[in-house]
Amino acid sequence: MERDIRSIVSQMTLEEKADMCSGRDFWHLKGVERLGVPEVMVSDGPHGLRKQNEKADHLGANESIKAVCFPTACATACSFDRELLRELGEALGDECQAEDVSVILGPAVNIKRSPLCGRNFEYFSEDPYLASQMAAAHIQGVQSKNVGTSIKHFAANNQEYRRLSCSSEIDERTLREIYLAAFEAAIKDGKPDTVMCSYNKINGTFASENHWLLTEVLRDEWGFAGYVMSDWGAVNDRVRGLAAGLDLEMPASGGHTDAEIVAAVKNGTLDEAVLNRAVERILRIIFKFADGRRPGDFDMEKHNRLAERIATESMVLLKNDGLLPLPKEGKKIAFIGKFAEKPRFQGGGSSHINSYKITGALEAAGQIPEITSKITYAQGYNVEEDRIDPALLTEAVRVAEEADIAVIFAGLPDAFESEGYDRAHMGMPKCQNELIQEILRVQKNTVVLLHNGSPVEMPWAGDVKAILEAYLCGQAVGAAQVRLLFGLANPCGKLAETIPLKLQDNPSYLNFPGDGQTVEYKEGVFVGYRYYDKKEMDVRFPFGHGLSYTSFQYSDLKLSRNQLSDSDTLAVSLKVKNTGDIAGKEIVQLYVSDLTGAANRPVKELKGFAKVFLEPGQEKTVEMALDKRSFAWYNTRIHDWYAATGDYEILAGASSRDIRLTKTVHFVTETQLPFHIHRNTTVAELLADERTAPVIRSMMTDLASDMTGGGDNSSEAASEAITPEMTLKMLENSPLRSFKSFSGLSEEELTSLIQTLQEAADTVR
Amino acid sequence: MERDIRSIVSQMTLEEKADMCSGRDFWHLKGVERLGVPEVMVSDGPHGLRKQNEKADHLGANESIKAVCFPTACATACSFDRELLRELGEALGDECQAEDVSVILGPAVNIKRSPLCGRNFEYFSEDPYLASQMAAAHIQGVQSKNVGTSIKHFAANNQEYRRLSCSSEIDERTLREIYLAAFEAAIKDGKPDTVMCSYNKINGTFASENHWLLTEVLRDEWGFAGYVMSDWGAVNDRVRGLAAGLDLEMPASGGHTDAEIVAAVKNGTLDEAVLNRAVERILRIIFKFADGRRPGDFDMEKHNRLAERIATESMVLLKNDGLLPLPKEGKKIAFIGKFAEKPRFQGGGSSHINSYKITGALEAAGQIPEITSKITYAQGYNVEEDRIDPALLTEAVRVAEEADIAVIFAGLPDAFESEGYDRAHMGMPKCQNELIQEILRVQKNTVVLLHNGSPVEMPWAGDVKAILEAYLCGQAVGAAQVRLLFGLANPCGKLAETIPLKLQDNPSYLNFPGDGQTVEYKEGVFVGYRYYDKKEMDVRFPFGHGLSYTSFQYSDLKLSRNQLSDSDTLAVSLKVKNTGDIAGKEIVQLYVSDLTGAANRPVKELKGFAKVFLEPGQEKTVEMALDKRSFAWYNTRIHDWYAATGDYEILAGASSRDIRLTKTVHFVTETQLPFHIHRNTTVAELLADERTAPVIRSMMTDLASDMTGGGDNSSEAASEAITPEMTLKMLENSPLRSFKSFSGLSEEELTSLIQTLQEAADTVR
Repeated sequence: MERDIRSIVSQMTLEEKADMCSGRDFWHLKGVERLGVPEVMVSDGPHGLRKQNEKADHLGANESIKAVCFPTACATACSFDRELLRELGEALGDECQAEDVSVILGPAVNIKRSPLCGRNFEYFSEDPYLASQMAAAHIQGVQSKNVGTSIKHFAANNQEYRRLSCSSEIDERTLREIYLAAFEAAIKDGKPDTVMCSYNKINGTFASENHWLLTEVLRDEWGFAGYVMSDWGAVNDRVRGLAAGLDLEMPASGGHTDAEIVAAVKNGTLDEAVLNRAVERILRIIFKFADGRRPGDFDMEKHNRLAERIATESMVLLKNDGLLPLPKEGKKIAFIGKFAEKPRFQGGGSSHINSYKITGALEAAGQIPEITSKITYAQGYNVEEDRIDPALLTEAVRVAEEADIAVIFAGLPDAFESEGYDRAHMGMPKCQNELIQEILRVQKNTVVLLHNGSPVEMPWAGDVKAILEAYLCGQAVGAAQVRLLFGLANPCGKLAETIPLKLQDNPSYLNFPGDGQTVEYKEGVFVGYRYYDKKEMDVRFPFGHGLSYTSFQYSDLKLSRNQLSDSDTLAVSLKVKNTGDIAGKEIVQLYVSDLTGAANRPVKELKGFAKVFLEPGQEKTVEMALDKRSFAWYNTRIHDWYAATGDYEILAGASSRDIRLTKTVHFVTETQLPFHIHRNTTVAELLADERTAPVIRSMMTDLASDMTGGGDNSSEAASEAITPEMTLKMLENSPLRSFKSFSGLSEEELTSLIQTLQEAADTVR
Repeated sequence: MERDIRSIVSQMTLEEKADMCSGRDFWHLKGVERLGVPEVMVSDGPHGLRKQNEKADHLGANESIKAVCFPTACATACSFDRELLRELGEALGDECQAEDVSVILGPAVNIKRSPLCGRNFEYFSEDPYLASQMAAAHIQGVQSKNVGTSIKHFAANNQEYRRLSCSSEIDERTLREIYLAAFEAAIKDGKPDTVMCSYNKINGTFASENHWLLTEVLRDEWGFAGYVMSDWGAVNDRVRGLAAGLDLEMPASGGHTDAEIVAAVKNGTLDEAVLNRAVERILRIIFKFADGRRPGDFDMEKHNRLAERIATESMVLLKNDGLLPLPKEGKKIAFIGKFAEKPRFQGGGSSHINSYKITGALEAAGQIPEITSKITYAQGYNVEEDRIDPALLTEAVRVAEEADIAVIFAGLPDAFESEGYDRAHMGMPKCQNELIQEILRVQKNTVVLLHNGSPVEMPWAGDVKAILEAYLCGQAVGAAQVRLLFGLANPCGKLAETIPLKLQDNPSYLNFPGDGQTVEYKEGVFVGYRYYDKKEMDVRFPFGHGLSYTSFQYSDLKLSRNQLSDSDTLAVSLKVKNTGDIAGKEIVQLYVSDLTGAANRPVKELKGFAKVFLEPGQEKTVEMALDKRSFAWYNTRIHDWYAATGDYEILAGASSRDIRLTKTVHFVTETQLPFHIHRNTTVAELLADERTAPVIRSMMTDLASDMTGGGDNSSEAASEAITPEMTLKMLENSPLRSFKSFSGLSEEELTSLIQTLQEAADTVR
């Protein structure tokens, strides 16, 4: 149904319009009955529906309806599977339609800057490309059911500490390449109905009042057409926010801020056109939902099976010294740790789902007839405690010793990671690390299963035989774990983030979480593997790493062209073969490495990936495409993406540190960078630019001689100390004004020289 | 002779005054004959006199008079010996008096930010306290002979790349704690006659035009009373520079800039009083020298012996698996490497000395009768080449194999490190690393002696038996090496910088040397060991490390008080005992560790040191003093040094990673920090301040309940997700304005609350 939104808005009073710009209550937008504008609901997500019918809150404190808790984003990102994320989105869309929810808040694409961020479990990755791909698929899935999404938290909200007031201080290039990039592609590709602005300030301005962010970048550059809503309580100055592009304040403001809007329009400080536009945007999405309602029911059991499948495809086999898969029969296997019985599978806060059903591994193992190995169990530790319980420990060690194999279910307690505050350290509770060490004394055949929303330190990693990372994998976590452990499914997830050896290794360590007023992103673009690779550091497990029960062989990397320019596309193909005995899926990763030296860049960056299923012995050709953006960095001289002319290496790998094939391609840019020449422009800069090089080179011989006072003497001391090559190196650092002091140029001659050079620089190629 | 400088200035014409503000030529200041103002000379230093009588330059290209080349600053800093630096200064002062030089340029106290800085060999340390102590002693020594010094390069000039135009971007706290601190104490304690401003910009403003730096900080805060001269060619805008506090431009400007000064005074853009003050400062130092002339000669041989002694006290024994000292008799010892014959002992550029005599180790060993071990020699490599010379390598391996012990003289060629450009990498030439590895195949008893101005990567460090770091140790280097090698002297130097495992480990790695326009000091105060300690990184050799042929025992750490305040001094004493068989010197280091948590600080910082000579079995009490500044950091809220109330640990150690004794002291500050309260002040900040805590605490119980919507329900899902402790943690991040959305406070009530809190905060304790 086509509606004339402008006409509806034109029939609204100023007060009605202002009213539309804040919530009716905690979860509903207002309506205007006389104009047929319905009161629609939004609900928390994004890995399940958190619809509250009773007492409302945004911190996960009060009850919501029963729903299916799917794996959280930290887990699903490890699937590297766009189709799977789309299916997840479709399921969520069905639940929203069944529950009459117009927008399910999320997905959240904030970059994992530090392992300590309390909300990392809700975020996808340390890599913006991967995060954007996962988010776009999620959005497309939900919105295919005519339910809106709200990509969040826009932007640069990478910690919980002082999140309502702290300013994220980030340079322009880093913001564009890392922190905005995850939003950019997801918004362009996914076209979410709404965007949720974050609580924090960015370089001193609240995201909720940031015109550059909410209007210039989001709408003018990226073409976003939906409405922007505030995170719950993110409004600082309502009128300033509206002018900046914040359409909807959530939750209800008690009418205070609506009145401020009315007053501002009346006293002329706010243009009514701004208000009209905001209301139009809100109404368009309200009616999009209302006019496309598809009420229906959904099948909880079916969604539970989907949750199990997603979990299975998301878990990451970090290490396997051959102990996995476990024998299905004939062995005594000890399941140790409370999480085997009562798993941790989601995090605290606004995303907390009231799961209708939870399956732990102990229960799941008992339900699978093929598993006839005898499974014993010991609790091992008290979940919420750091302290060792000697009785539990002793029992666990005994059970482990009596078994052939020990499977330890470990990880972080709820209190360790949640929305609202950050983790204090990167360790697991002491009692759990101690448990693992003690069990290793009596049982060499030990597997560790991890339940955590963000990396933990693993001092025992070298000693255990296998590690399976489950992250927070949703309500069906146990079923998926058992299938993977016993080889009923083949692990195929890969890490969406680096697991460092220790917290201190993290690039943000020296600056996280800041002093409460500001947090400085001093590591710049060197986030995650971009840092560990550049600094050539050892890590526990690298980005993109994940093992399988089969093996894959890469071959035949082909590029569709040897050279490309700004508007070209490069098709990349390679062959992947399953060289093992069982079927499996491989995640092929494509990285690009800038060899031009034009900027200080990461060693390589992820620019493509594909997940491919292969039967034993089967080989498939995997195809991916790269374009200018895959090669580009954000050049602050032109405030635009830029790839310098030169060579780039294309790397195909099984992980960021397991590159299997490489090829080089030549890029030729059509962009001519501006070159402003002044008295402090250096010789080196002039030599480096093909437009000015001939002019300055013609002056060089004389200058080199002048600069060093001649160099015509025969002193041994002197000639040994300074060679002509050394003199030239020194000369390169000289600004043009130096020729005044050293070569006797007059101010007029200097000015004329600068003018000549500028004319050369302004020549269009 | 007391002169009335003001009266002289008052008799000068405007043109004469402007003339005084630039050099007559490359090395001389102008005089005014009719007023008896002499034309005095300044000369390059600082580890020897580089007086040029013929063709002049500032890059070390042309000949200077024969003089004694003392060890460079990178070496002398390792002595940790204030008295020794004073002696060095006295010797330089004598040479200047003999040569009629009014000011010897230096010392240079720039912080070693990256091992790649080409000029590191001229700088003392990565630690500002150590650098300032060495510099102050040097200055006092020179100036005791009535010759001036010029502490340089002021400031934040920590690389050669684009040094004439690049802007060092440094936050206020880092600038104060690290980059200015080295100057501050040296200027306050040493009272240099002149300061040399650096080429670079600081946060966008040329040092030579930086009023804040050259006037507000240098003169108004620190009390500097001499004249500021430009580094050679550092003037960008002469008039702006003069107004900022740059008194003397060097070298000669051809009269151009003098005319600019005259014009500026005439057209009113420059206050003549500024010019008068600059000329007064210059004249005061000129007459100080002229009126205190002590012409005389100096004894080159005596200074050569001093150079040898300083070298002996400065070299650092990095590793010794018992092979050193070498047997003086009965063994066949192979000296391998060109540097044994023709040592590298100074760097390139303006500090380059025309040494009157150079002693290599091969020559020195032959001159010591006690050494009857047979010494053979092989060149091993070509100094200036990366490439292996197979014939030299083969010969060296044969010579090493035939000997009982191999001593390899290795290090960096001249072209690798010099004023004017930075090093390209941290490695030694490939041919030298290869030589060491090849010799290790045939000779396990291998010692490496290093000749380098800045750390090198040592891939063979674990395999050789001993490493003696000579840095660039002056013309008598060989004599000192032989004495130390054969135990005629006992090594007593310790590292004035960290030697990292690899370049990538360095804190500045991601940002050094910047993009040519700016260089961002993003590692902040975490420079050198402050970074490696904070990040808990392994290093090759830590700051302060150095071995001896004897051993020392630390005991009885005593503090003169358990508690101190802003104006108190803390006397620290401890006992050190020589527990070995030979006499030796130990450098005792005192570090302070801030346990208060008030700021993001290094794990510990050097705040005192003492060098003590001990006969075998002898024990001495070492005393050092600490004051507020030893505990303080630079607090940008008050733009002043500040030590928070709380506990601090005092650590006495033999190196930064060999802490032997610790004690805790309590500091109580009298400084009350201002606390401005606004709508985005958080609950946590209010709770953390004793003035506002009672007010906000009294509101808390209700708030916590409101914020979470009550928390009075009994849902299992909810109560498990969010505990009351978690709610409180979340609440701490809330700004005051949140109470408006969540607790229904009106804008008026919020304003009133802020006012009440501000009144509490303004209460004087």
